[in-house]
Amino acid sequence: MTKDMNTTPSRGPTDHNVRDQVVEAATEHFSHFGYEKTTVSDLAKAIGFSKAYIYKFFDSKQAIGEVICANRLAMIMDIVNAAIADAPTASEKIRRLLKTLTEAGSDLFFCDRKLYDIAAVAARDNWPSVVAYKQHLRQLIETILVEGRQAGEFERKTPLDEAAHAIYLVMLPYISPVELQYNLETAPTAAVLLASLILRSLSP
Amino acid sequence: MTKDMNTTPSRGPTDHNVRDQVVEAATEHFSHFGYEKTTVSDLAKAIGFSKAYIYKFFDSKQAIGEVICANRLAMIMDIVNAAIADAPTASEKIRRLLKTLTEAGSDLFFCDRKLYDIAAVAARDNWPSVVAYKQHLRQLIETILVEGRQAGEFERKTPLDEAAHAIYLVMLPYISPVELQYNLETAPTAAVLLASLILRSLSP
Repeated sequence: MTKDMNTTPSRGPTDHNVRDQVVEAATEHFSHFGYEKTTVSDLAKAIGFSKAYIYKFFDSKQAIGEVICANRLAMIMDIVNAAIADAPTASEKIRRLLKTLTEAGSDLFFCDRKLYDIAAVAARDNWPSVVAYKQHLRQLIETILVEGRQAGEFERKTPLDEAAHAIYLVMLPYISPVELQYNLETAPTAAVLLASLILRSLSP
Repeated sequence: MTKDMNTTPSRGPTDHNVRDQVVEAATEHFSHFGYEKTTVSDLAKAIGFSKAYIYKFFDSKQAIGEVICANRLAMIMDIVNAAIADAPTASEKIRRLLKTLTEAGSDLFFCDRKLYDIAAVAARDNWPSVVAYKQHLRQLIETILVEGRQAGEFERKTPLDEAAHAIYLVMLPYISPVELQYNLETAPTAAVLLASLILRSLSP
């Protein structure tokens, strides 16, 4: 998204650059003033573009919000993938998965910039980025289970998709930023306790 | 709360009766118009009492809300207790606990009367009734675990309070009405899958 694609000379900024600029400014603006309360007019004023110009690139405020939400979820996914990549066992992957989901979710939606507002709307309206993110994590859990079963770390009696889905449900309140808000304080402890419970449920 | 205590003759309604009347009318009113948006003036008008008269019995709108919330949580607790009372095993108690928590929570805060609004404020402000309800359920889980350990149904290696707390954390999104709202559709399936996962984690 942030690649430099200025290979052909252009007098004005490229479309990509303008889109990025709007998204960046909107992220900043929403994190201070909230997503719900901000209009495209407010945003235009804050960025210094005309409202009409913004509408050239985004159909609606939601279209901007969706890019911001998708960006944040992609950042969480990158952090999760990096954390589990070098884990020595499937069990350790389960532990790191819960830990990083919780930490990255807290940081990216609540601490660094308060974008909780976007998460709330995204969850309520089931934005495609949220649906894709959840599906991806559901799949990742299944992949870890298969790995652990093949290595003899995990039991094999429970049907794979049942076990994977149940673990996904345990993790869901920490996967979904909108649910995470209710558990921010207890999340670090919860991540450890829940990972241990999940691993007990998987013991052969 | 609803006992008839009219042993001494009285011209007007007894204080208890008036309190009950206000709570009942407020429950009805909040469930239609929402808790947050309703003022004590609105409520007084709807009930047909003066605002000053309501303030004779309740310090604030929140005081009324707290009674309503406490009543609903007590109703859920009664349903839970009745459901697990005759369960033949500790495992069956775990299953019924999750099932009834989910069903009664959905019914009493979302279906019968939409009192979600109160649950949201109660959770945000940590009302005493919510704290007490959670502590009670946390204790109930521990009691079931002890029973299952003594009967040889459950493993005994994990420290009791760790196991109980982890199970409580798995159940929390279904215990807290404000989190339950995000899982209403999937809750019946989740209750079954999560109970099975918990029981796998407890197997000796």
